[in-house]
Amino acid sequence: MTDTKRKAVVLVSGGLDSATTAAIAREEGFRLNALTFRYGQRHEIETQAAARVAASLGVERHVFLTIDLRTFGGSALTDDIEVPKSGRVEEIDRTIPVTYVPARNTIFLAFALAYAETIGAADIFIGVNAVDYSGYPDCRPEYIEAFERLARLATKVGVAGTTFTVHTPLIALSKAEIVREGLRLGVDFSLTHSCYDPTPQGWACGFCDSCLLRRQGFDAAGVTDPIRYVGHVG
Amino acid sequence: MTDTKRKAVVLVSGGLDSATTAAIAREEGFRLNALTFRYGQRHEIETQAAARVAASLGVERHVFLTIDLRTFGGSALTDDIEVPKSGRVEEIDRTIPVTYVPARNTIFLAFALAYAETIGAADIFIGVNAVDYSGYPDCRPEYIEAFERLARLATKVGVAGTTFTVHTPLIALSKAEIVREGLRLGVDFSLTHSCYDPTPQGWACGFCDSCLLRRQGFDAAGVTDPIRYVGHVG
Repeated sequence: MTDTKRKAVVLVSGGLDSATTAAIAREEGFRLNALTFRYGQRHEIETQAAARVAASLGVERHVFLTIDLRTFGGSALTDDIEVPKSGRVEEIDRTIPVTYVPARNTIFLAFALAYAETIGAADIFIGVNAVDYSGYPDCRPEYIEAFERLARLATKVGVAGTTFTVHTPLIALSKAEIVREGLRLGVDFSLTHSCYDPTPQGWACGFCDSCLLRRQGFDAAGVTDPIRYVGHVG
Repeated sequence: MTDTKRKAVVLVSGGLDSATTAAIAREEGFRLNALTFRYGQRHEIETQAAARVAASLGVERHVFLTIDLRTFGGSALTDDIEVPKSGRVEEIDRTIPVTYVPARNTIFLAFALAYAETIGAADIFIGVNAVDYSGYPDCRPEYIEAFERLARLATKVGVAGTTFTVHTPLIALSKAEIVREGLRLGVDFSLTHSCYDPTPQGWACGFCDSCLLRRQGFDAAGVTDPIRYVGHVG
């Protein structure tokens, strides 16, 4: 039976969004081929979380790609500049945050497309979200549609008639809805990692924008977040 | 004066096409920011040629990026499979050659876009050619236009109104025309490297598809190719 299932490439970062996205792809009947980028993060904790998450979801292959986005600079997630800590979720800058990495999703989707064409997949899953990350241009539906169009023109199989679909099942969901959807699908959120500024042992800071959104999401979903936060949080 | 010139990102592979493309960008008055990929080639000769070519053209910055396309497989240029040697230029497979790398130009342009946005450039130069490489889907004008559209939607500056232009000055030129244009602009072709299968000391094989196209181009232009070929060629 397994062989008759279609393959999908799923971008897995180790965060709760991509974990839920992968679980949705699995529920839709796809064979999961995970792709994780090491891209100049200040820590390997995300990569380890990605490996755990993918294994827990039964991916058939997991490719890790190292790319050095620090070469170009321009973001708190890749440079040695201070991660912003708004302190309160209402204070997060929803325009275009300092954590924006130029063309990041275009680079990620380009590699996903190469992976997809190589393994004979026409489906790519990415956990972008236009609600919490409304300031990121490459998280919007019109961007995703433009990439799908490009993918058809960019590839041998596209020219031969294959239509690539970039699935963004989370694009219009709130964080609370993502948490509930993940729980419904059996995602083990204790394996995930979201913090931009964790302790050396991997505990979340609780106050970076990513932690704030995550905590608010679990709160609004009425569920306890199973990950470990530093000190007074959680 | 220099500071008032606009910056451009130029993809430089070390081959004669990208050398001529960079020379055209310079002639058009751009400040050149070169980008070269190390992508699982079997030899470092191309990278060295790229460094020589860029230096000879006075680039103001040269970024080298290592990406491992072998992770996905699928091409003679990145895998350990035999490079095709047609022997005669008429026998080159112009459909979709074995040297096709899935989504290669999409990956290259995605990084070029990240570079461009980071340095405040809106112009990218790439030496794609739809004549000699008609089999590559990502060398066609409609593909380039789709990427330009994506670039506008993908970036902070695009959303703010910047229009990215992907310049493809060679797209409709024959190899002979490229050689002549390069010579007119003072490109030193002795610095370039085209061969898919060079000797350890960097001499060109003379018979891979890339060598055949290059040799035919110089022949048709009525010019002697200054690079060193193995034995009986050149």
